Amino acid sequence: MENKLHELKTILAEIVDLQHAAAVLDWEQQTYMPPGGVAARADQLATLHTVAHRLFVSHEVGDLLQGLQNNHSTWDYDSDEASLVRFTVRHYERARRIPIDLVASITRATTLAHEAWVKARHEADYSLFKPHLAEILDLKRRQAEHLSPYQHIYDPLLDEHEPDMTAADVQAMFAGIKDDLIELVQAIGERSGSVSDEVLRRNYDIERQRAFGLNVAQQIGYDLKRGRLDEAPHPFCTTFAIDDVRITTRFDPNFMPTALFGTIHETGHAVYEQGIDPALNRTGLDEGASLGIHESQSRLWENLVGRSRPFWQHFYSTLQSSFPDSLGDVDLERYYKAINKCKPSLIRVEADEVTYNLHIIIRFELELALLSGELSLDDLPAAWDSKYETYLGIRPANDAEGVLQDIHWSMGAFGYFPTYSIGNLVSVQFMNEARMALPDLEDQIAQGKFDGLLDWLRTNIYRHGSKFTPKELVQRVTGGPMDSGAYTSYLHDKFSEVYEL
Amino acid sequence: MENKLHELKTILAEIVDLQHAAAVLDWEQQTYMPPGGVAARADQLATLHTVAHRLFVSHEVGDLLQGLQNNHSTWDYDSDEASLVRFTVRHYERARRIPIDLVASITRATTLAHEAWVKARHEADYSLFKPHLAEILDLKRRQAEHLSPYQHIYDPLLDEHEPDMTAADVQAMFAGIKDDLIELVQAIGERSGSVSDEVLRRNYDIERQRAFGLNVAQQIGYDLKRGRLDEAPHPFCTTFAIDDVRITTRFDPNFMPTALFGTIHETGHAVYEQGIDPALNRTGLDEGASLGIHESQSRLWENLVGRSRPFWQHFYSTLQSSFPDSLGDVDLERYYKAINKCKPSLIRVEADEVTYNLHIIIRFELELALLSGELSLDDLPAAWDSKYETYLGIRPANDAEGVLQDIHWSMGAFGYFPTYSIGNLVSVQFMNEARMALPDLEDQIAQGKFDGLLDWLRTNIYRHGSKFTPKELVQRVTGGPMDSGAYTSYLHDKFSEVYEL
Repeated sequence: MENKLHELKTILAEIVDLQHAAAVLDWEQQTYMPPGGVAARADQLATLHTVAHRLFVSHEVGDLLQGLQNNHSTWDYDSDEASLVRFTVRHYERARRIPIDLVASITRATTLAHEAWVKARHEADYSLFKPHLAEILDLKRRQAEHLSPYQHIYDPLLDEHEPDMTAADVQAMFAGIKDDLIELVQAIGERSGSVSDEVLRRNYDIERQRAFGLNVAQQIGYDLKRGRLDEAPHPFCTTFAIDDVRITTRFDPNFMPTALFGTIHETGHAVYEQGIDPALNRTGLDEGASLGIHESQSRLWENLVGRSRPFWQHFYSTLQSSFPDSLGDVDLERYYKAINKCKPSLIRVEADEVTYNLHIIIRFELELALLSGELSLDDLPAAWDSKYETYLGIRPANDAEGVLQDIHWSMGAFGYFPTYSIGNLVSVQFMNEARMALPDLEDQIAQGKFDGLLDWLRTNIYRHGSKFTPKELVQRVTGGPMDSGAYTSYLHDKFSEVYEL
Repeated sequence: MENKLHELKTILAEIVDLQHAAAVLDWEQQTYMPPGGVAARADQLATLHTVAHRLFVSHEVGDLLQGLQNNHSTWDYDSDEASLVRFTVRHYERARRIPIDLVASITRATTLAHEAWVKARHEADYSLFKPHLAEILDLKRRQAEHLSPYQHIYDPLLDEHEPDMTAADVQAMFAGIKDDLIELVQAIGERSGSVSDEVLRRNYDIERQRAFGLNVAQQIGYDLKRGRLDEAPHPFCTTFAIDDVRITTRFDPNFMPTALFGTIHETGHAVYEQGIDPALNRTGLDEGASLGIHESQSRLWENLVGRSRPFWQHFYSTLQSSFPDSLGDVDLERYYKAINKCKPSLIRVEADEVTYNLHIIIRFELELALLSGELSLDDLPAAWDSKYETYLGIRPANDAEGVLQDIHWSMGAFGYFPTYSIGNLVSVQFMNEARMALPDLEDQIAQGKFDGLLDWLRTNIYRHGSKFTPKELVQRVTGGPMDSGAYTSYLHDKFSEVYEL
């Protein structure tokens, strides 16, 4: 048993190394690579993924897993060993069932679709993208069929990003918040004049933005001996190892929140990854539990901490002295309201806390309808625009700010969007638990002390890596299931105060 | 046949991709990686090399090569196909004999040794590095033994960097120049007052140095769409693909030549790699012929071009206007002499053209003695210091400027140093041929036109990649063997004039 486990871990370590090498190449492509490098980099990334996949779906891994599954009752469910077998079996069975030809077809189709999407978005012409989307949709349906049985064809696609979650789970979750959100957006809309973010649109020197953002990231607990911040057009967090977790951001000299809250968001992802138990190093368990749980941490730090009043009671004077020309005449309350301004917009990535989930609900409903065949690709743009009008009261002027705005579908990432909302909902559930465990949490934050919260998160969430499924993790931490109630209460409390509703 | 070749190339492409991925990880370690990343990076590099090695030494590759070798008489010797088979067979036979565990051990040991070397050099404390060096030396001895028979244990290590060259070849080469160099250094020493480099030790703003260096690199022909310049403690050039070749440099605000001539040196390497025939992409032939041939190009551009009078007839006014405070009162002749000042120094990478090869001879003699067991690691620092005193008349004050100065041994690169001298010697042989082919070459350079020389080098050397061995390439280009005569003539001519000997 110990022998088999050791053999398995040796193979998994190689696979994780290859995946992390791919992460370095991908990060470098997005930060420093000269344009000429793109074709070779694509070959190199394809090779790294192919070689890793080949190692993973080998009979050797299959035999080791079978032997370990038959005998792993000696291990406690929570142990690293039992968790590794559970996690690896789940991934192995999934990987074995998808034919390698189909993986190659998806890679080929999405590579071409990405180019077509860039062009289509640039020309605001959905018709250029539609045939590619049709092919991708067909391939993703075939992928899902290889993973049958399922209740809804959406389930296996969602499961790739959010293990064990189903379309029905997401539908139930959204049913609990949708009407309430639409109502709240309307109520805020009637008071829209009471909050302005003009002060955030003044001049903000980029080097000072960088220094301030890095300082905040470090105070939160991002260890720069095991990480660094670089610039990239699309901010992200990526892990090369538990001891080497990188974040990127982008700077807008005339809109301060882009870099600052982007940096705090990525810092949330990064402290999660840096907080994983080193014993899980190079096993595959050395990553967050799911995209949704990951997003719960980026959103917790970005919104529940980073856009809270106590946080700025600590940081605001430093921010003011970094940007005296832009903020010298702005008091804390005005600033606090500005960073919490809520206004329906067409673009998801720029959305505030209140409207964000409506963007996700729209995409989720459209994905379900497309995959089940209820909605045709011909009717997709009109369906998109109509939902924006119904839920957010605004209508895209063209496909570029409508159905073409997100990269996800061009990458074949159906079943991905709901993870953003899962993150939002779970972030509040987790934060409420932390508040109960740390009754003076607000005071700690107002004093710039984040180690209490960080330790609690490390102990209860981060250190486990992906040992537990999202549902298991939420149950362990909160004693109950995922639930949207805490989230709607949070939004109502916060924005009733900000907008004096 | 075509089928077998296609199969072989498919496997080789994967191997080259893995090697280039390792190059990216290594570059990133030396430029941007936070210190915490070192252990994981060592694992990742070990895995990439192990997986690439495993793919390469497979029976599949062996069978393909055997089939191709039996039939490749239909291909012309110079063809890409015949060259690929020759080159791959040579590497395959070498690789098959080195156990995979040993390859992994060397990668792991050298990655850790690199960090230890950085610390040891920083603290000028050889004892921190010695245990790592002992392990590496042991591993390299074991590696050499797997490649027996040999005349000297040094031969298989040298062969790794300089195919077909032996310790005896190098000894013969050094015998032809050593006494002459020591004599020339002494003659120059007696006239040392006649040349000063004080003007190079004034204030040189780093950003202006960077801009000037990049401009020179581009004018020489380094394509920044397919490359970029970063900072690293030990400058190097590395290739991720023919279309993605990186260089690094370091800056000293009070000694201008460090970055400038370092950049020109690495640019020489880079234009070589960027000039390889794209048809050789992802075959293994898409790299320089050897380290010595590579160094012939870095030295040709750095010294034969970059420290020549015509080069500065073109560039000097621009340099002056970049640094008016430091060079405004310095005329071209004073500057030309300053950059050609010859003075024994302790640091190889800052050595002038005359003393440079004495640094190499010292290292070569020490490596031979270490590997044959005549010299112990305990006695190494003293032996180092004593040779400096004998050959160059100076003595290191501490290990940082003595035995710890070079990165090479921390990388396991025994048998590497002689390639620098091979490069120096061959650079003059090649340059003499170029001068015969381009009679107005000096005028072209004085007008800032480098494309004539670059085209000649691309046609005769660069495009071939590693299709030919160094000896073959020198024979093709010069019509004769490697020879130290041209080099000593060049040094005597140039420095007799500079020092009015």
